[in-house]
Amino acid sequence: MMITINIIGTGNVAWHLANHLAKNSECILLQIAGRSKEKLERFKHLTKEVVVIQELKQASITIIAVADDAITRVASQIPEMDTLIVHTSGSVSIDRIPQKRKGVFYPLQSFSKHDHVDFSAIPICIEASYEEDVQRLYNLATRFSTKVHTIDSHQRKQAHLAAVFVNNFTNHCYTIAQELCEKDNIPFELLHALLEKTAQKAIDHAPSDVQTGPAKRNDKEVIKEHLDMLQEEDHKSIYNTLTASIISHYGKKL
Amino acid sequence: MMITINIIGTGNVAWHLANHLAKNSECILLQIAGRSKEKLERFKHLTKEVVVIQELKQASITIIAVADDAITRVASQIPEMDTLIVHTSGSVSIDRIPQKRKGVFYPLQSFSKHDHVDFSAIPICIEASYEEDVQRLYNLATRFSTKVHTIDSHQRKQAHLAAVFVNNFTNHCYTIAQELCEKDNIPFELLHALLEKTAQKAIDHAPSDVQTGPAKRNDKEVIKEHLDMLQEEDHKSIYNTLTASIISHYGKKL
Repeated sequence: MMITINIIGTGNVAWHLANHLAKNSECILLQIAGRSKEKLERFKHLTKEVVVIQELKQASITIIAVADDAITRVASQIPEMDTLIVHTSGSVSIDRIPQKRKGVFYPLQSFSKHDHVDFSAIPICIEASYEEDVQRLYNLATRFSTKVHTIDSHQRKQAHLAAVFVNNFTNHCYTIAQELCEKDNIPFELLHALLEKTAQKAIDHAPSDVQTGPAKRNDKEVIKEHLDMLQEEDHKSIYNTLTASIISHYGKKL
Repeated sequence: MMITINIIGTGNVAWHLANHLAKNSECILLQIAGRSKEKLERFKHLTKEVVVIQELKQASITIIAVADDAITRVASQIPEMDTLIVHTSGSVSIDRIPQKRKGVFYPLQSFSKHDHVDFSAIPICIEASYEEDVQRLYNLATRFSTKVHTIDSHQRKQAHLAAVFVNNFTNHCYTIAQELCEKDNIPFELLHALLEKTAQKAIDHAPSDVQTGPAKRNDKEVIKEHLDMLQEEDHKSIYNTLTASIISHYGKKL
């Protein structure tokens, strides 16, 4: 079944969605809408037409891929027509779209500009207010990925919160590790194998089954030495907070 | 050049070192020493002899693979002989070995019992008090890995501290993410692709170049909503501490 699509937005998510759809023979990317002519220029080869929102014509699904706080405003500007309007955000409720036929198409991944994106490995969380639209979104999602999950707005927000721990917070721990290495002229590459293995183990096992380290052992001597070595206040407070949490998780009190 | 080795210890590190050495045609694993006859039983097929420390005979290198706080005590029990004595710890100074010919052989990885270990990808940090012993350790280390780094005790401690951020703290973030998922019946597998990609990106780029999320954007609305969703005090305090650090790192003040 051929699916017609419009995309609103010219950021990273819009870019990767448009590139994937342009290559799919069972989808037609009718229009891409944005405010900036300059940014739309990049998208011209991917679609039949680049337009402003007010010029959007009917498509089976209209995807809003813009910043979270712009979703409602952008949705309100879509000309009245019979189309399923979805946003792509993890943390925004379906109800921020004022139209009746609304939904969510949330690829659970962190997108950067220059990265190549292989959607087949990326889970897609979908939700819609009408059962036929859930089916419509499911058909679209299976053209991206084999991992399609129907979850409600509450679960999606919770998954997004969990994603903050898995992505944003771990990446910041990597950043601090790199700073600690650079301070003493240690190449950060020294930690690459450990970094990779840590992720792989958490996938192969439950992460709580493979926790190691001074906090897990409640090794006060090493913990004290580490705190003495850390010079930045925010490094110290991250070390303290995570160490206290690990100690309390594994049942040993300081 | 044939290298003769003794290992003291029957834990995970000893296990993986002994298994690797037993397969290497240029090393002879002479003896493995430990206190527990039961634990030594597992090692019998890997070595010529299992013994107690006091029965150790001369080998080119004697590797102490025991808990950090037992290293000095164990080293003191080694019969007097001309051998290079090394420990395998990231956080313990070379000087905790009382003998003159001392060193460190630190594989920068987290070892679990049942994991298969491929040493070829694991960096090995070496240090010794005499230049000829550095060379001796280097020869041994290259039989394990192509990534051999000569670093001093101060750098090694710093690398170990950085490893706590890369492994212990990220793994604990994964654990919390899994708990958040389970609370709302979301399969943790939904986050596997993101988890893997996050690690891969930090290896392919500088982690600070790929930071994303509400803290990076200083998105107060999402941050507040996340804090309201978190029910455990220690989850809240990890969220607050890491968020504040990310905000201050990327130059936006709350």
